[in-house]
Amino acid sequence: MMIIMHNNATPAQVENVIKHVKDAGLAVHLSQGVEATIIGAVGETHNIATEIFEILDGVDIVKRITQPYKLASRQFQPLNTQFTIRKTIFGGEDVGVIAGPCSVESRSQIIETAIAVKEAGAIALRGGVFKPRTSPYAFQGMGEEGLKYMAEAREITGLPLVVEIMSQTQLEMMLDYVDVFQIGARNMQNFNLLRSIGETTTAVLLKRGLSATIEELLMSAEYILSGGNKNVILCERGIRTYENSTRNTTDINAVPVLKSHTHLPVFLDPSHSTGLADYVTSIARAAIAAGADGLIIEVHPDPSNAVSDGKQSLKPEKFAKMVKEVGQIAQILGRNLATIQ
Amino acid sequence: MMIIMHNNATPAQVENVIKHVKDAGLAVHLSQGVEATIIGAVGETHNIATEIFEILDGVDIVKRITQPYKLASRQFQPLNTQFTIRKTIFGGEDVGVIAGPCSVESRSQIIETAIAVKEAGAIALRGGVFKPRTSPYAFQGMGEEGLKYMAEAREITGLPLVVEIMSQTQLEMMLDYVDVFQIGARNMQNFNLLRSIGETTTAVLLKRGLSATIEELLMSAEYILSGGNKNVILCERGIRTYENSTRNTTDINAVPVLKSHTHLPVFLDPSHSTGLADYVTSIARAAIAAGADGLIIEVHPDPSNAVSDGKQSLKPEKFAKMVKEVGQIAQILGRNLATIQ
Amino acid sequence: MMIIMHNNATPAQVENVIKHVKDAGLAVHLSQGVEATIIGAVGETHNIATEIFEILDGVDIVKRITQPYKLASRQFQPLNTQFTIRKTIFGGEDVGVIAGPCSVESRSQIIETAIAVKEAGAIALRGGVFKPRTSPYAFQGMGEEGLKYMAEAREITGLPLVVEIMSQTQLEMMLDYVDVFQIGARNMQNFNLLRSIGETTTAVLLKRGLSATIEELLMSAEYILSGGNKNVILCERGIRTYENSTRNTTDINAVPVLKSHTHLPVFLDPSHSTGLADYVTSIARAAIAAGADGLIIEVHPDPSNAVSDGKQSLKPEKFAKMVKEVGQIAQILGRNLATIQ
Amino acid sequence: MMIIMHNNATPAQVENVIKHVKDAGLAVHLSQGVEATIIGAVGETHNIATEIFEILDGVDIVKRITQPYKLASRQFQPLNTQFTIRKTIFGGEDVGVIAGPCSVESRSQIIETAIAVKEAGAIALRGGVFKPRTSPYAFQGMGEEGLKYMAEAREITGLPLVVEIMSQTQLEMMLDYVDVFQIGARNMQNFNLLRSIGETTTAVLLKRGLSATIEELLMSAEYILSGGNKNVILCERGIRTYENSTRNTTDINAVPVLKSHTHLPVFLDPSHSTGLADYVTSIARAAIAAGADGLIIEVHPDPSNAVSDGKQSLKPEKFAKMVKEVGQIAQILGRNLATIQ
Repeated sequence: MMIIMHNNATPAQVENVIKHVKDAGLAVHLSQGVEATIIGAVGETHNIATEIFEILDGVDIVKRITQPYKLASRQFQPLNTQFTIRKTIFGGEDVGVIAGPCSVESRSQIIETAIAVKEAGAIALRGGVFKPRTSPYAFQGMGEEGLKYMAEAREITGLPLVVEIMSQTQLEMMLDYVDVFQIGARNMQNFNLLRSIGETTTAVLLKRGLSATIEELLMSAEYILSGGNKNVILCERGIRTYENSTRNTTDINAVPVLKSHTHLPVFLDPSHSTGLADYVTSIARAAIAAGADGLIIEVHPDPSNAVSDGKQSLKPEKFAKMVKEVGQIAQILGRNLATIQ
Repeated sequence: MMIIMHNNATPAQVENVIKHVKDAGLAVHLSQGVEATIIGAVGETHNIATEIFEILDGVDIVKRITQPYKLASRQFQPLNTQFTIRKTIFGGEDVGVIAGPCSVESRSQIIETAIAVKEAGAIALRGGVFKPRTSPYAFQGMGEEGLKYMAEAREITGLPLVVEIMSQTQLEMMLDYVDVFQIGARNMQNFNLLRSIGETTTAVLLKRGLSATIEELLMSAEYILSGGNKNVILCERGIRTYENSTRNTTDINAVPVLKSHTHLPVFLDPSHSTGLADYVTSIARAAIAAGADGLIIEVHPDPSNAVSDGKQSLKPEKFAKMVKEVGQIAQILGRNLATIQ
Repeated sequence: MMIIMHNNATPAQVENVIKHVKDAGLAVHLSQGVEATIIGAVGETHNIATEIFEILDGVDIVKRITQPYKLASRQFQPLNTQFTIRKTIFGGEDVGVIAGPCSVESRSQIIETAIAVKEAGAIALRGGVFKPRTSPYAFQGMGEEGLKYMAEAREITGLPLVVEIMSQTQLEMMLDYVDVFQIGARNMQNFNLLRSIGETTTAVLLKRGLSATIEELLMSAEYILSGGNKNVILCERGIRTYENSTRNTTDINAVPVLKSHTHLPVFLDPSHSTGLADYVTSIARAAIAAGADGLIIEVHPDPSNAVSDGKQSLKPEKFAKMVKEVGQIAQILGRNLATIQ
Repeated sequence: MMIIMHNNATPAQVENVIKHVKDAGLAVHLSQGVEATIIGAVGETHNIATEIFEILDGVDIVKRITQPYKLASRQFQPLNTQFTIRKTIFGGEDVGVIAGPCSVESRSQIIETAIAVKEAGAIALRGGVFKPRTSPYAFQGMGEEGLKYMAEAREITGLPLVVEIMSQTQLEMMLDYVDVFQIGARNMQNFNLLRSIGETTTAVLLKRGLSATIEELLMSAEYILSGGNKNVILCERGIRTYENSTRNTTDINAVPVLKSHTHLPVFLDPSHSTGLADYVTSIARAAIAAGADGLIIEVHPDPSNAVSDGKQSLKPEKFAKMVKEVGQIAQILGRNLATIQ
């Protein structure tokens, strides 16, 4: 960390900053230049806020040299994270596709969808039973009943279950059913939830917040990792911008940026990042071409009767075609479609 | 709600939409034009998602005529909401200022600050004991110990306490201490938390999310109101934009927009919306000039030793000057500074 | 166009709106519902601003049914636009790559680059001789001297020239040299320049503005098309958002959205949309996978001595590898790399 | 400027950077720390792009200590800029209000409006005769005929004329009529236009671009100032964000930020920054309360028959009330409403 003093900072102010640096357990490297005095603060700085120096009198700018996260960084772990849930490998050389409906609506709907997406090449089943809805009057999900149907679908297909958790109060009950907790965009900075999940051993698919920076996404991953849970998948799902011809703006740049900064698997959700079924396949292909490790896709057997997100759901046939195309693109990058063992 | 059909929609598709409208408990008003067939869906529409019609075959656009919230709207309640907490009135004709440190750091710090802000004209004391921090390694707040010190400060000054709640798991304990729950920007769409708070009778200061629209803020208020808790204050605290010379962009437009759409009191937080103490007073004046009902301000007796948000905290003297100026501006608009009875 | 009246609009107000609709040369279709009176305005509406009705007393919402552009729309021309400049086809079934340095710096630099990119598979040569620089003190380009060197490079390689025009005052001189005018992001709404270019027969590569919507990009294309110049290429080059880990945010969604709304060729510029050479190849692949018709790429023989945009320029070898990869992806979509005849 | 090398930079790379710093006419201050080697580049750096160092091998980060503009900065000129156009003073202690219609529509309209706004306290008359319209089919302005009517209005009222220029080709003709050139948001980075205006002695009202940063606004001012034209007024007019309940988002923070960074007068345009007449007065009050030096307001005698921007135009009576209120707020800040001598 470098602390650049104002060019009219007094010697006493410089001394005071040096004292604070040492108090923070860091070594001091002082450099008195013509334009500015710079105080290098050397040591383990990822767990020190720049702010504690910024507020000191005489300080102009505090600049990190290293990133504010550690466990999530590629420097800390150069090799890609990879882990196996039931018979599915996440984050390896292969490219995996998670699929399923936005919401579990009935036993038959989830089982039918599970069979269809398995057949098309999916390696995990998604489905929501607690739904974060903007309106208090909208459908809020089937709750535990939905999880029971999902478990049946898993029994039949072998697909592990990816399910969104919205609150710490749901954690204990969900642990009995869920293979991968999804943390939704609106909860990416629900730090209490992140900590609770970090204390479990259940894998997590962490979605980027609506207006979260890439660095903030990695900081939220750091919350989970620092609790001891190493099985974290990151998921770009579109960010909020001024453009309104699509529901969100897919930040495709985030794929290569994340791949260079972190060892965690990087997935992309083109269903939410576009909001319209017609664009999902194009963006799914783009994600894999950009280097993503996987996709999460909304599939519904009958989108025009879906209780939520019908506009962005693919029918199973269209999904199957999409999987085939992304598999071909993966091969150009020397990768294969993941399959269940 | 108006449902505009594609101009090549078939009679069967029109029939199907009409059926869905009736199933939703709405009356149908059909209008077959040259360019388009329009189906008016008339009745209580605030609790019906436009999506359930958008996904039907043949539908082009679904357009709300009325707002998607009801209890929060000025149509529902033309008169301004006003309520009294201890001896403080929120939301009346008068303009109120809440103040205090970002974090409670010690008994002496919070008591000293409380006395100073009371003297300067504040009507409530803010202070954080659970802190939502981007980094898992940063100071996370004093917890219940901090609440005890705040209660002492209340004892001495009479100021009601405004404290952020981050999780449902903190609710029961906090109820013993807190007069107004603050819901922070990152939790504006933590719907489970909103529902839990909605079931209490404790007042709420609901902050706008980092990239929440004004409509989404009102929808989150609707979550609380629909649970039966009517004592909700809305708070603009800056939104995230591309501009980086300030921490956030104060959406000053939100003040008159909210005042026209809702009966709930509208506060503004210039400490977070600017992020720099030097700009707080200017924006505080602007907020009141724009018609805000109050302010929430970070004040610290010694900002350069604050454990969090020192950069944006005012010293008590500067705060006192600010209160005086906003009081003068309020008078031009025919309002007074609120005082504790 | 549909004009929805306030539910308390008077008969006189409705009459007044009807009069204005007729005055605008449109037919009226009146529908008096329970909740709202709707006035359909039927006819050629793309050249009528919604605003002229929005300001009338009693009007609530004015909603377009059809798009505000005509010549650029796929409804107007279902088949893709395709045109030939010298021996290069733009916008056909094949995917084309334009490449070259940000700025022309010397005779040898542009000729060397032209030969290298031709060999790697480029179908046109880009190069800036007038540079839009944020700072008045930065290098502003070589002007006509640079064009002469570009013309030499064209002589040698056969590559047509794509050059940015910044001002109407440069038009006449540039016509002698340039095959495709580039209109940069900062000039996308320089309407006088658009009109001037629309009156020429020289092709145009129109870049999306820094914060332009997709609709605004198409409206700017409409300016050129309505002047009679049909040879327009659209170019996504990243938009400005809050995310700062890359120079801009590539709006990859814009590719399928544009392909569905317009017949014009859609290119993408990953050099500017990422700002960092390390990410260019990933995003170039993503663009073609998403359905783009071509790419424009900054290539420099010695990026660390480039006078501008060195950070985002590829070396020729890296560019050659990129072209090969995007060619393979194109084939999966049933397309080929364009070549010069 | 500080150049921070990668921690594995070689001595040869450090040497090479030092050579480039010296070539740029700057002195070198070398500091070899434990974590990083830092090369201070000392001297006149505002006219040197950080990029020329960023692209050198071994360089990690280049950080400016001083701003990239000079003439516009408060360091360069501590005292506020103030100048007189006819009998109107811009930028002094007093607060000035410019007003008039969006477009000049007829002789009577502009004269009538000029008389009304003069009476209400305006110090200059705005009016557009060349209109930047998104659609090529929309009304594009009256051109020189409109200027003649404006000159008549000036004759009658004494109000100097503020008129938007869209292109260098309009410059010579407009010089005969215009007192203050307005450069609109879409032309803030039309650098050729900025340079042309910089060579005149006519004052300029420079509007912030739709998604320009505050620093970019100041860089555009620097273009004009560096040409020798010192009479520049800056104008915040709202920025583009995701929020859509208003036409733009008023960046009220920009007022105190600009006042601290520059000596140029800072105006605000609440008509464009809100887009709705109902909100204009609130935001006008807020602007003055935040410390703005003036306002520019759209006023139309009959907004519902305006050919452009009728939705955001105030009627003269409402405008007069607004002027009175902002005058009262100015007094609290120790300022007065400017008047024509």
